Amino acid sequence: MSEIFKKHISKFAQVSDEEFEEIKTYFSTKEVAKKENLLEAGQICRHHYFVLNGLLRKFYINEKGTEQTTEFAIETWWLTDNFAYEKQVPTQFYIQAVEKSIILYITIEKQEKLLEAFPVMERYFRFVYQRAYAAAQKRIQFLFSFSKEEFYLQAVRNHPEFVQRVPQYLIASYLGFTPEYLSEIRKRLLS
Amino acid sequence: MSEIFKKHISKFAQVSDEEFEEIKTYFSTKEVAKKENLLEAGQICRHHYFVLNGLLRKFYINEKGTEQTTEFAIETWWLTDNFAYEKQVPTQFYIQAVEKSIILYITIEKQEKLLEAFPVMERYFRFVYQRAYAAAQKRIQFLFSFSKEEFYLQAVRNHPEFVQRVPQYLIASYLGFTPEYLSEIRKRLLS
Repeated sequence: MSEIFKKHISKFAQVSDEEFEEIKTYFSTKEVAKKENLLEAGQICRHHYFVLNGLLRKFYINEKGTEQTTEFAIETWWLTDNFAYEKQVPTQFYIQAVEKSIILYITIEKQEKLLEAFPVMERYFRFVYQRAYAAAQKRIQFLFSFSKEEFYLQAVRNHPEFVQRVPQYLIASYLGFTPEYLSEIRKRLLS
Repeated sequence: MSEIFKKHISKFAQVSDEEFEEIKTYFSTKEVAKKENLLEAGQICRHHYFVLNGLLRKFYINEKGTEQTTEFAIETWWLTDNFAYEKQVPTQFYIQAVEKSIILYITIEKQEKLLEAFPVMERYFRFVYQRAYAAAQKRIQFLFSFSKEEFYLQAVRNHPEFVQRVPQYLIASYLGFTPEYLSEIRKRLLS
């Protein structure tokens, strides 16, 4: 299973087999049940998660008491509340398994030690954050540009497998509308 | 002026005076006039900008023909269209000086060469992207959580100097409403 991680590192940085065996020891593996929470609002955000298999989502409870999903993470994606993780402060977010998942995770202390021992991993994480930042910038542009309905159409067009994979009520939670409204849009699309 | 850059690097990575003299040679400096565009929609995004002095903003023209500002960059902030910069493709964005500014800039080819020659700069840029990503995640949460009016109040409360410094019509362009609507909110706040 850790082969997935090794392959992902090798997309951005050169790491030998021996080095990878060492690098692996900084991480722990965990099987997460469907709907299990890895992180809950109010907790110190201790871990950075890497999805080997499955699907995670990050959400918070908004002032109306509704779950607002802000991110999903599928295989080879990293997920955490980056601000709370770096500062080791309580988070407002939940991180939950959407499907039964297998994940790697690391603490900030171990991540810092890993980066000291293997500076080549600075390059890897530089790319991880660089790509994640570019994706977040696109998301911000989309939030301004598109109506919720257009945003859904974009998702169906650009990520059809993802839209198939994720339960509809979570797609609604990501787009910021009710499951009922999403049903309406889908009906309109089919008619 | 390059002392500002050196000081910023030293927040995240250890670089000797001799190394910094070398690192500097990968960058160019430019004085930008107020309202001068560094990047325009349709152009290949060739540069990554670091503000030594002054203030830049990034915006695009939305479907209504209005300028939607998505980011500002003050001293020691990096700014580019990260997706278009990494892929070297045409951008949809403009980058413009809000005030007369002095900036450093680098191309992606030179940035890659710099990172090869000085792997310590991987650590620097890893931190730059990590922080920028965390800020973008917060922004996304704010876009979902707050009404435009609440968002403005947050900005006034958390970044009063910034709100003072930036022309009101650009604050409006960042928040996604008209200058007239912003005037209304301000009047309501004062009354």
